[in-house]
Amino acid sequence: MQDKILEILRRKNEYASGEEISESLKISRQALWKHIQELRDSGYDIVAVPHLGYQLAASPDKLLPAEIKHNLGTKLIAKNISFFDAVPSTNDVALNMGIEGAPEGTVVVAETQTKGKGRLGRSWSSPKHKGIYFSLILRPKISPAQSPVITLLVSSSICEAIKEVCGVEAKIKWPNDILLQNKKLGGILTEISAETDRVHFLVIGVGLNVNNEKNLSLPQAISLKEVTQEHVSRLNLMQEILRRIEQDYLTFQKEGSSAVINRWREYNSTLGKRVKVTSDNGHLEGIAVDIDSDGGLLIRNDAGLIRKVMAGDVTHCR
Amino acid sequence: MQDKILEILRRKNEYASGEEISESLKISRQALWKHIQELRDSGYDIVAVPHLGYQLAASPDKLLPAEIKHNLGTKLIAKNISFFDAVPSTNDVALNMGIEGAPEGTVVVAETQTKGKGRLGRSWSSPKHKGIYFSLILRPKISPAQSPVITLLVSSSICEAIKEVCGVEAKIKWPNDILLQNKKLGGILTEISAETDRVHFLVIGVGLNVNNEKNLSLPQAISLKEVTQEHVSRLNLMQEILRRIEQDYLTFQKEGSSAVINRWREYNSTLGKRVKVTSDNGHLEGIAVDIDSDGGLLIRNDAGLIRKVMAGDVTHCR
Repeated sequence: MQDKILEILRRKNEYASGEEISESLKISRQALWKHIQELRDSGYDIVAVPHLGYQLAASPDKLLPAEIKHNLGTKLIAKNISFFDAVPSTNDVALNMGIEGAPEGTVVVAETQTKGKGRLGRSWSSPKHKGIYFSLILRPKISPAQSPVITLLVSSSICEAIKEVCGVEAKIKWPNDILLQNKKLGGILTEISAETDRVHFLVIGVGLNVNNEKNLSLPQAISLKEVTQEHVSRLNLMQEILRRIEQDYLTFQKEGSSAVINRWREYNSTLGKRVKVTSDNGHLEGIAVDIDSDGGLLIRNDAGLIRKVMAGDVTHCR
Repeated sequence: MQDKILEILRRKNEYASGEEISESLKISRQALWKHIQELRDSGYDIVAVPHLGYQLAASPDKLLPAEIKHNLGTKLIAKNISFFDAVPSTNDVALNMGIEGAPEGTVVVAETQTKGKGRLGRSWSSPKHKGIYFSLILRPKISPAQSPVITLLVSSSICEAIKEVCGVEAKIKWPNDILLQNKKLGGILTEISAETDRVHFLVIGVGLNVNNEKNLSLPQAISLKEVTQEHVSRLNLMQEILRRIEQDYLTFQKEGSSAVINRWREYNSTLGKRVKVTSDNGHLEGIAVDIDSDGGLLIRNDAGLIRKVMAGDVTHCR
C-alpha cells in the first residue's frame, strides 16, 4: 500500500489531495494518514498542506524496495526485495529464503551488515549507509561445478554498471574481487544450495564500497567516492547493477558460458599478469593465460606447463 | 541421563537396584522413576520387581540414539544423533542443522518421513518402522564439483554392510540407486551447502527398504526381507552402515577418490552394460565403460566416442 501511495505522490508534480489518494486506493482518510506517518518514519519527507494535500519533498538516502523498484524496468531481477536497516549477513537471510522457496530474482538488501561475510570465512566491513550490500537469489539450471561462471557474470555486470553510472573503469581480479586503482572496491560471495548434479539455487552476495570515507585501517580498500570525489547515488548504481545482471543473465541462459567469459575478459585485470595462487593444495606461480569454460584460471608455470586452478587467493606479482 | 540408565541396565545381567542406579548417577529415586517411565513410553520394556530393582527385558524395534550408539565403536560418525518418530524429510532437518553448525558425523534418523525426498525432486516412500531413513552431515575439504564421489562412497559402504549383515549382494546403479535382483532396494540423495570453490557441508540422505512387505503399487521396488525371507534387524544393519561409512570416509581422506572409485567398481552394476542416459541435455546411448575421478560416468557411443555424463537417469538396456 505504501508503495502505491508513493507512486501517486511521484506521479503528481503538484499536491495530491487526501481525498483523491484515499478514493483511488479505496482506503479511509485515517488509514492514509497512518501510512503517510509510517513513510515519514522510514525517512520520506512528505509535506502536508491543509486544503491542498500531500507532496513528496524528498526520498531518504536508503536502498528501500519502493525506491529500487521505481523505474527499474526489470522482468526477473528484484521483483521481490527484502530490506533491512541492519542484518548479520544478507547472504544468510537469502539462503534461508531460498530454502523456503523464494523465487528467482529475489533480492535481500541491508544498510549495514553486522557479520558481513567474505570468501573462505573472512569478514566484510559494511559501514552503515555508505556501501551497497545485497544478495540475489538465482535458480539457473546448472550443476554445482558450473556455478563459478555466475560469479564471473555478476562481477562483469557490476563493472559495466560502475562505468555507466560513475564513469570509472573498475577491474576484476579472479575470482571475485572488484578493483579500482588496484585497490579493493568490492567483492562477490556466491553460495550454493544443490544436489550433486544440479543447483537448487545460488545466493550471490555483493559488497561494494560507494561513499565510504578513507579507512586507514584498511589500506588496501578504496571507495567510488574516493576516486570520483563526488557523492555517488547508491540508488542509481544499485538499479543499474540489477539491470545489467538481468541482461547478462538472460544472455547466459540463451548463449551459455562463452558469452559470460568473453565479457569477463574485457574487465579482468588478472589475465596476462604473473600471479601467485595460494590454496589448500599449496602455491602455484606463473602467467595467468586464460580462463576456462567452467571459470577456472589457467596458469602457465615457468616450465611451460598449463595448470588449472578452481580456488585460491591470487596475488598479482609486480 | 536416559542413555546412562540404559547403559547400567545393559551392564547388569541381573536386576539393578533403584538405590544403586540413583546413587551412581547422583539423582533422586523419584527422578529415576520418572526417567524409567519415559523410557517405557519410548518402547523399552523395563521390569520393576520390589526389593530387587529394575531389569531391561526388551528394547523397542526403533532406531533410537541410545540403541544405535550402543557398541557402535565409531569415532566420528553418529556421535550426535537426532531421532524423530516422523519428520517431513531427514535431509531437510539435517540441512538446517548443518547451517546452524552441527558437527561432522551428525545423524538425523526417523521412523518415517512424510515427505521423503528422492533425486530431482522426486518422492521417496518411507513406511513406518519398515525401512532405514537417515541423513548424515559430512564436512569434507572438497569443492562442490568433487562431491559426487561422496555419493559413490556411501553407496559402496551400504553394499558392504548389507553383505555383512544379510549375506546378500546388493549392487549400485550409477549414480545413486542400490539394487537387489535388479530392483530398487534403496537410494542416496546428497545435498550440498557450499561456496563455489569449497563445500561447507554435505547432507547424505539414505533410504533403504528393509522389512517392507511387497508393495504392489511399486513393482520396481524390493526389500531385504523379500529376498532373505527373514525379519532383518534394522538396528544391526544401520550400525554396520555407519561403521563402514566411517571406515571408507577415513580411507577417502587419506587416499583420495581413487580408493572410493575402486571400491565402487566392485559393487556397481552399470559398467560394461549398454545404457541410456536421459538428462536435461537430451538422451545419450552407449556402453558404460568407466567412471571418472570426479564420479562422472564415461559412455562410449556407437560412433566410438567417449562422452562423460555428470547427471541424468540411467536405464540399463537389455
